Amino acid sequence: MDIKNLLQEDIGLFDLTTIGLEIGEKKGLMSFSTKDECVISGIKYVKQILEYLSIEHSVFVKDGEKVEAKTLLIQCKANADVLHKAWKISQNLLEYLSGISTYTNTFITKAKNINPHIEIATTRKNFPNTKELMTYAVVCGGGTIHRLGLYDSILVFGNHLEFLKDPNELKTKFQALKNKFLEKRVAVEVDDLTQANFFASLGADILQCEKMSFDELRECVKLKEKFPYMKISATGGINIENIEQYAKTGVDFIVTSSPYHAKPADIKVKMEAL
Amino acid sequence: MDIKNLLQEDIGLFDLTTIGLEIGEKKGLMSFSTKDECVISGIKYVKQILEYLSIEHSVFVKDGEKVEAKTLLIQCKANADVLHKAWKISQNLLEYLSGISTYTNTFITKAKNINPHIEIATTRKNFPNTKELMTYAVVCGGGTIHRLGLYDSILVFGNHLEFLKDPNELKTKFQALKNKFLEKRVAVEVDDLTQANFFASLGADILQCEKMSFDELRECVKLKEKFPYMKISATGGINIENIEQYAKTGVDFIVTSSPYHAKPADIKVKMEAL
Amino acid sequence: MDIKNLLQEDIGLFDLTTIGLEIGEKKGLMSFSTKDECVISGIKYVKQILEYLSIEHSVFVKDGEKVEAKTLLIQCKANADVLHKAWKISQNLLEYLSGISTYTNTFITKAKNINPHIEIATTRKNFPNTKELMTYAVVCGGGTIHRLGLYDSILVFGNHLEFLKDPNELKTKFQALKNKFLEKRVAVEVDDLTQANFFASLGADILQCEKMSFDELRECVKLKEKFPYMKISATGGINIENIEQYAKTGVDFIVTSSPYHAKPADIKVKMEAL
Amino acid sequence: MDIKNLLQEDIGLFDLTTIGLEIGEKKGLMSFSTKDECVISGIKYVKQILEYLSIEHSVFVKDGEKVEAKTLLIQCKANADVLHKAWKISQNLLEYLSGISTYTNTFITKAKNINPHIEIATTRKNFPNTKELMTYAVVCGGGTIHRLGLYDSILVFGNHLEFLKDPNELKTKFQALKNKFLEKRVAVEVDDLTQANFFASLGADILQCEKMSFDELRECVKLKEKFPYMKISATGGINIENIEQYAKTGVDFIVTSSPYHAKPADIKVKMEAL
Amino acid sequence: MDIKNLLQEDIGLFDLTTIGLEIGEKKGLMSFSTKDECVISGIKYVKQILEYLSIEHSVFVKDGEKVEAKTLLIQCKANADVLHKAWKISQNLLEYLSGISTYTNTFITKAKNINPHIEIATTRKNFPNTKELMTYAVVCGGGTIHRLGLYDSILVFGNHLEFLKDPNELKTKFQALKNKFLEKRVAVEVDDLTQANFFASLGADILQCEKMSFDELRECVKLKEKFPYMKISATGGINIENIEQYAKTGVDFIVTSSPYHAKPADIKVKMEAL
Amino acid sequence: MDIKNLLQEDIGLFDLTTIGLEIGEKKGLMSFSTKDECVISGIKYVKQILEYLSIEHSVFVKDGEKVEAKTLLIQCKANADVLHKAWKISQNLLEYLSGISTYTNTFITKAKNINPHIEIATTRKNFPNTKELMTYAVVCGGGTIHRLGLYDSILVFGNHLEFLKDPNELKTKFQALKNKFLEKRVAVEVDDLTQANFFASLGADILQCEKMSFDELRECVKLKEKFPYMKISATGGINIENIEQYAKTGVDFIVTSSPYHAKPADIKVKMEAL
Repeated sequence: MDIKNLLQEDIGLFDLTTIGLEIGEKKGLMSFSTKDECVISGIKYVKQILEYLSIEHSVFVKDGEKVEAKTLLIQCKANADVLHKAWKISQNLLEYLSGISTYTNTFITKAKNINPHIEIATTRKNFPNTKELMTYAVVCGGGTIHRLGLYDSILVFGNHLEFLKDPNELKTKFQALKNKFLEKRVAVEVDDLTQANFFASLGADILQCEKMSFDELRECVKLKEKFPYMKISATGGINIENIEQYAKTGVDFIVTSSPYHAKPADIKVKMEAL
Repeated sequence: MDIKNLLQEDIGLFDLTTIGLEIGEKKGLMSFSTKDECVISGIKYVKQILEYLSIEHSVFVKDGEKVEAKTLLIQCKANADVLHKAWKISQNLLEYLSGISTYTNTFITKAKNINPHIEIATTRKNFPNTKELMTYAVVCGGGTIHRLGLYDSILVFGNHLEFLKDPNELKTKFQALKNKFLEKRVAVEVDDLTQANFFASLGADILQCEKMSFDELRECVKLKEKFPYMKISATGGINIENIEQYAKTGVDFIVTSSPYHAKPADIKVKMEAL
Repeated sequence: MDIKNLLQEDIGLFDLTTIGLEIGEKKGLMSFSTKDECVISGIKYVKQILEYLSIEHSVFVKDGEKVEAKTLLIQCKANADVLHKAWKISQNLLEYLSGISTYTNTFITKAKNINPHIEIATTRKNFPNTKELMTYAVVCGGGTIHRLGLYDSILVFGNHLEFLKDPNELKTKFQALKNKFLEKRVAVEVDDLTQANFFASLGADILQCEKMSFDELRECVKLKEKFPYMKISATGGINIENIEQYAKTGVDFIVTSSPYHAKPADIKVKMEAL
Repeated sequence: MDIKNLLQEDIGLFDLTTIGLEIGEKKGLMSFSTKDECVISGIKYVKQILEYLSIEHSVFVKDGEKVEAKTLLIQCKANADVLHKAWKISQNLLEYLSGISTYTNTFITKAKNINPHIEIATTRKNFPNTKELMTYAVVCGGGTIHRLGLYDSILVFGNHLEFLKDPNELKTKFQALKNKFLEKRVAVEVDDLTQANFFASLGADILQCEKMSFDELRECVKLKEKFPYMKISATGGINIENIEQYAKTGVDFIVTSSPYHAKPADIKVKMEAL
Repeated sequence: MDIKNLLQEDIGLFDLTTIGLEIGEKKGLMSFSTKDECVISGIKYVKQILEYLSIEHSVFVKDGEKVEAKTLLIQCKANADVLHKAWKISQNLLEYLSGISTYTNTFITKAKNINPHIEIATTRKNFPNTKELMTYAVVCGGGTIHRLGLYDSILVFGNHLEFLKDPNELKTKFQALKNKFLEKRVAVEVDDLTQANFFASLGADILQCEKMSFDELRECVKLKEKFPYMKISATGGINIENIEQYAKTGVDFIVTSSPYHAKPADIKVKMEAL
Repeated sequence: MDIKNLLQEDIGLFDLTTIGLEIGEKKGLMSFSTKDECVISGIKYVKQILEYLSIEHSVFVKDGEKVEAKTLLIQCKANADVLHKAWKISQNLLEYLSGISTYTNTFITKAKNINPHIEIATTRKNFPNTKELMTYAVVCGGGTIHRLGLYDSILVFGNHLEFLKDPNELKTKFQALKNKFLEKRVAVEVDDLTQANFFASLGADILQCEKMSFDELRECVKLKEKFPYMKISATGGINIENIEQYAKTGVDFIVTSSPYHAKPADIKVKMEAL
């Protein structure tokens, strides 16, 4: 994360209000605290901002910690002009990231109550230019990473299969894929049981079941009896409202984008003159 | 917007799946279309991505256009490896930005049905690192910019007033602020009528009324009889559910972050071999 | 300001002279002092350079301070190789920026002696790639910012009016402009009294009077009786030679680029071995 | 030169005036022409800007060309919103750079009228962050580069000699310097004839005579009889007012910063609707 | 790859030789050809450079192609000043990258002659700042990627085990690792058979056998009978001299850095005036 | 050197192994030591990495120092997650750079044993994107810089002469080159004695003798009797195997790329839990 860019986006060349009011050199205390219970994320980046601006600070919580309403998170001292530079971007970071981590945490808690071995992994459908921040918040909330991008994992989509309509070519190329990247698991997104069976037989390491019914998912899970090394995930429209039903199907993990759209947490920022 | 960074975040050094399946040099057609009615935003950036990757393309809509469900937006031709690089980031851009512009459009339409002169302006509480994208989508939806950051506008908050507790100093400094930046309007966030009256008398150009009741807002609007040049805005918890009631109070504009949290639009991306 | 780039521009990969003379590890003291009276600017950036290079330093003045000839500004200790890296870029910063702030200060002092409420604001005609540095120096000298660029303010030029030759369209669009950006003042550059009257009637918040005679300026100032909220500025060829006459016309502020072309201040840099 | 940064500095995220007046999609013609005779510089960068913004354009002059008053330099066609983005930064580039190249050209013409072999070289005392632009303009005007920075040349200053007060050490180290960088000429800045003689004897390839009288300079030039390979330059306060006297002394070249402070040329930019 | 940086590193602000010889505007033809047989890599980047400099060009080979000595690779036309900017960095790219791809190709050919299913994967021990270029060349030569970095794969080293000396803790944590990243294979670097057995039992997906004897390797390969899904790789000092012996052990793949140190290929660059 | 980029290339967004094993917060000690005797280079950059990651560290050697096998170079303490981030890029830097500096050192030692005044200078044929690192290592080993790029030196190649086939034009332009850049030495690459004589007569300051026989080189060296200021270098296929014979020819310096291809040094990195 380029801390300088994050700041620059918000502060630009001059803080007109603080300069115009001539309060820049007054000493102040700025405190961040929660309004509601939440799982905190973003402390890591706020610390980098405070350090970049040479602001003296104390931090009372860690990313990933579940805190109560009205918990004091950070307190810092500096001249008013510097505090006003740090204020809003720090608040935005804490609000958006804690929103995601809180949502993720509820999500995984609900899921693990049903199936303690299940994992929640988020997609590469993050808001553009926020992959680092959004995935960090997911991990703070107890989730894991499905794939960061094209470069760290293998996932065969229908949009790949369009180029391999000849079944023999598909078999050959699928085998080539497996041989080429021996250190990777090969995942395939499948829409129904026929596809699931087909790719399990071809040697898929992971079946990513897209928008299947609960019954279909259970059938896919049964394939593991025959292919014990294989993992099954469910994806498509899964969120904290319906996760429990998915967890009951016995899938190994859930692939979802829903934490990225979580409502931001409410973080109060209060300044006082010293 | 740095198009190269947007892309890099998603594609990294190698597209393992496409390389492994050896389909990279096959020719393909990729089509983007809407699933539901929406106000489109993001075409501007997707075009830059397609140009950056030298992908031949046709674009059938403009940002800001309201389109029906199943409208074809963009069609493009290239080798499969290049199409797979462009796919997901383009889809993400269209989904997130069109989500924001559609929400903003509904928001302003509801508001203008009550008061044709009202404007909807969004805050600087965007997701970190997305100011350009999120504000662009707001403008595509018919909204306007409240302030980009500290550098383009003046807005006095309670966190400034903490450093000016002596009323005489406050008056003097407020006048200094007005004199220093003669080309700017001076806005003040006020919580109640007393504050509103006080800053109106001091010469505030804009009163930003934070979380006031509808009655209080109406009283603030009445202040314009005495201070005809002054503008009144309402802020704090305003969204498409409650906008109509706020519009009825007669405020000049609404300041809100709610479009930033809009649900992404649903954009279908289909590839075909050629 | 990217301090690393500033430095890199001057030092590159190797300091051939210092390496070749094998003096790099000798300890030295480097002192910056004024040759003539001036208003200092640039300390902010020189401190960042010294910190970036981990040079121990003491600073004896603040940006914006008026100092006498032969005033010691900064003293620093480090190995000779590091001092030679910091030397010239630090000197350049202090010389160019203090040149601008000293000029600006003379400018505004002359103007305020005539009219204590007048302000001096500088244009966006800075040397390309120096906006931050040049505007910072102007502010250190007591000036203010006219506009940073297209994004922070509204200014209608003749080059806009070329696209609105139909008077009815002009009126409609001017009103649209005012409605769209309710939080901004709308400025118009006018060349004569007819234009001034016309745009005052349309609701311009600021008339920027371009190259008008002193009599014309006085007539424009009189328009404020009818439009009390409106501000009048003068621009075009105004500098420290002629400012007093402009100040006498009663305009609210001056818009000028002349400080950007000020002669650099003379800063002496002396090294001594320790 | 990062064209994107140059532009960004001026245009930011939104052109409020053009958006507010709703003229962005009207077609326009923009023309750049000289007001006075000058030597043009900056076309190279303006072309990059026009290409970056995909503006159709015709260019009628080359950098380094001397043109008359009212010469049409560039004409371009595009939508009004794009023309307004390109306008001011292009004008600034042409005005500042042509100011420098015109000054440099006058400088060298005066010098060569006296001594056809003399060269004018500019220092590394450019405005911070403008080295590429300022040195490019100098070269367009017929000047040459003295040194770009610490990395491309060797120049021994008094601030180096402070670390070599022992004459034996100085001799040894000076020889080491010469041996280490066999492919470079070794220049030394000298203040008087004694120093000049001393370093000529040590094997200096260039004596850079700082603020010497014309008589002293002539004496230094005479040293070339004994050291035929050596070059003599003069520096310190030399500009187009006094260059002719310096040229008469017979020095090989002049080292100066004065072109960097040249008055910008006056370039007119006119838009018309199409 | 930032093409601009690649170029800038070599060309800087002025090409002194070409400017001084005044040949910059002469038209020329530049040809790249091989001196010896090799597997080509780097065409991709050279094309980007030629496009960046707007040089007209024809390319006669593809990356990954094996070509004979004296094969014409690329021919391009432009002014001499532009050709001289493109020359050396293009040559360096072709020489270094083709050196690596040729070496890799020999490596894998020798290995596959013994065992057609074996793969050659290179480590993250590339020269700093060249990961993209070096791994690209490996892939052109027929190799594959072992891991790009910490973020795309899991590999447990002795330096991790130092923190898990308690065997119970190790087992628990190893299981946690497997559960957390269900979509990744878990590799472990092992030094001897005891370790190999231990981690195979814990569920390692890949054993990376570090500097084992050929007999030990064969024993490790036998573990696959019990753990059929597991892969075995050999690493440590493997290169084209000894690869055949390693291939005979039956390991699934080789992990090596040796292609990164390959001798550059010899590419001739010839200019002619047109 | 952009330390952040160096790191990022290797670590990306998440260290999967360390996160998965849940060892990140354990305290550890990491030690770097040599396996064999070598001349160290890279400490400068490793320190920057350790500082960037806020790792407490002690450094026991300096770049350029010759150290014995099993010498402890650096020791550092931090949490395991931070140590794992720093490990491999630090090791790579030390291994590659010390490989180059050790090779360079052997090279120059052999050469100076024959001729104490000879210098070894390396070309601009570094691996793309590593100029700073590779040239730094050469200087640590006792070598010098031939030329960094086109911008810091003048070197006429055959590829320049192709544009100056008319001998009169060549003479005129060669003189122009010398006059334009009075502060630079003019080098010419020559292939045989005829060319050597020709360019010596034209006033070349340096003859760079490309792939000449030892006898030809000796003849070139004799030209210095007639042109005492001129320097002679040899280039083309010179390395530590054949340097002694070249040194015997009496040339002033050697121009070579061979140190860039040196075998990396072997640096052991050991972690221990604390």
